[in-house]
Amino acid sequence: MKDLYPSRQEANARLLPRTDPVVHGAWTPDAPITQEQAAQFDADGYLVLDQLFGPEALALLQAEAHTLLNTPGALAPETIITEPDSRDVRSIFQVHDQSAVMARLAADDRLAEVARFLLGDEVYIHQSRLNYKPGFKGKEFYWHSDFETWHVEDGMPRMRALSMSVLLAPNTANNGPLMLIPGSHRVFLTCVGETPEDHYLSSLKKQEYGVPDEESLTQMVREHGIVAPTGEPGTVVIFDCNTMHGSNGNITPLPRANAFFVYNALSNALVRPFGAAKPRPPFIAARDVRPLLKSPGLLQERAA
Amino acid sequence: MKDLYPSRQEANARLLPRTDPVVHGAWTPDAPITQEQAAQFDADGYLVLDQLFGPEALALLQAEAHTLLNTPGALAPETIITEPDSRDVRSIFQVHDQSAVMARLAADDRLAEVARFLLGDEVYIHQSRLNYKPGFKGKEFYWHSDFETWHVEDGMPRMRALSMSVLLAPNTANNGPLMLIPGSHRVFLTCVGETPEDHYLSSLKKQEYGVPDEESLTQMVREHGIVAPTGEPGTVVIFDCNTMHGSNGNITPLPRANAFFVYNALSNALVRPFGAAKPRPPFIAARDVRPLLKSPGLLQERAA
Repeated sequence: MKDLYPSRQEANARLLPRTDPVVHGAWTPDAPITQEQAAQFDADGYLVLDQLFGPEALALLQAEAHTLLNTPGALAPETIITEPDSRDVRSIFQVHDQSAVMARLAADDRLAEVARFLLGDEVYIHQSRLNYKPGFKGKEFYWHSDFETWHVEDGMPRMRALSMSVLLAPNTANNGPLMLIPGSHRVFLTCVGETPEDHYLSSLKKQEYGVPDEESLTQMVREHGIVAPTGEPGTVVIFDCNTMHGSNGNITPLPRANAFFVYNALSNALVRPFGAAKPRPPFIAARDVRPLLKSPGLLQERAA
Repeated sequence: MKDLYPSRQEANARLLPRTDPVVHGAWTPDAPITQEQAAQFDADGYLVLDQLFGPEALALLQAEAHTLLNTPGALAPETIITEPDSRDVRSIFQVHDQSAVMARLAADDRLAEVARFLLGDEVYIHQSRLNYKPGFKGKEFYWHSDFETWHVEDGMPRMRALSMSVLLAPNTANNGPLMLIPGSHRVFLTCVGETPEDHYLSSLKKQEYGVPDEESLTQMVREHGIVAPTGEPGTVVIFDCNTMHGSNGNITPLPRANAFFVYNALSNALVRPFGAAKPRPPFIAARDVRPLLKSPGLLQERAA
């Protein structure tokens, strides 16, 4: 298969054109989001659905998250990520396969129908996570395009995937919220993968494998700025697979928690990695593709 | 001298009453700030003076900062703080003694008169710094009350000092701006200084010497929230010596820079440290007290 988005192969970063649409479906009045929302996702590469889940659904999700984080013995050991210096659980991968509540959340129309529309296809879960970051010592997460990694390391062929973060705790301006560079999804920034030829000239400029370069990031931010959506629990932040994003650390007492699902188009299933000898394990990047079925969904709130 | 604010002496953190005023001067129409501003500083422990310095003064300050950061050979070596992994200068201490421009800035009426009013006394510079933090890899600075350190380690007797940060680069919501807990200045949170008696019960809860405890910080934030003033270059952020503050790291491309002055009341000069055998060196905590004189001040902008 032709590599439309080669990365980590050259000594200098390049901006390549995105050859895939952002909104793959054609909007009609039956679409699960408004025409304005579709246009905003297309232009900015992200969309916030404010308090999509109400108090009852949220209580169910928070209780389930608490149970999962505190009974790691019930989970597949490789899916549990703990803090380096303690046994506190910080992330659980493949959570939709290990929790009926999370499976129902992933398949809930409020999320899955939006994914089907934006990706213009049936969808499946490429990756899922439950994330919990305590306050006071939350670490930063450096800028990256998920697609760059998924393409190079996992073999995702095209840009036809997106992420949804269901907030289980408030995102404030100060507790290290997700930051996005709106519009960055419209180009593919390659990462440096060989020692630059003129490395001796630029040895003070740290260049790391698979990391966007500072010069391109500076240019992107100058052009597009940075957004850091805030929101109450129950809010959903959706972003395109190629939107550049990251987060600062968090010294505030306010923890962060979310349920995180990556939806991929069924037609965009993984092939051999474009830049790695061996694909990453399936709990990080699903290779057993099962279309997400219609499901009872999560608890439906009573109409207001 | 009686220690009104004992800290780092007990196994448990305590909240002690502040026995000093916050605004030490009596407001009159001649005061350099409005009555509302004085009341806000009193209540919140901080005050933002938006773009106090205009483009001409700012250009002068930025040029001087550039010169100082790039010609470290001209400075006292002990006052220069470099990054651990390079020779890039990150802070220059005692900058008002090493730069005529910075001396004029410190003595400028727009700052010094506000300090004299809020502290109700003649003032001197307890500490000064020029700070530069590059983007991408800015580190966090954990919560602290400056007074706690200045009292314990430097021998500052009373709460009659304040800090002024003159922004030389924009403070945005995302580039790790100064965060303050408004109202926190009204109590004195002692830091733990002995191994707690029940340490074996709580050994997973990290307790560090001279650092506020997480429980008290959580309570303070629950009660008062967090503010992170944003502002353009030329803006001045003033905060009381006992206002709890800190900052997150900064992965954005936007660097941060400021000129930082601590004004202390002349009547509040340092004595022997209340919790250290030996005071810190004078470039960190001035012991040679010279009242700040009226000066020509920095470039005065033409009236608009």
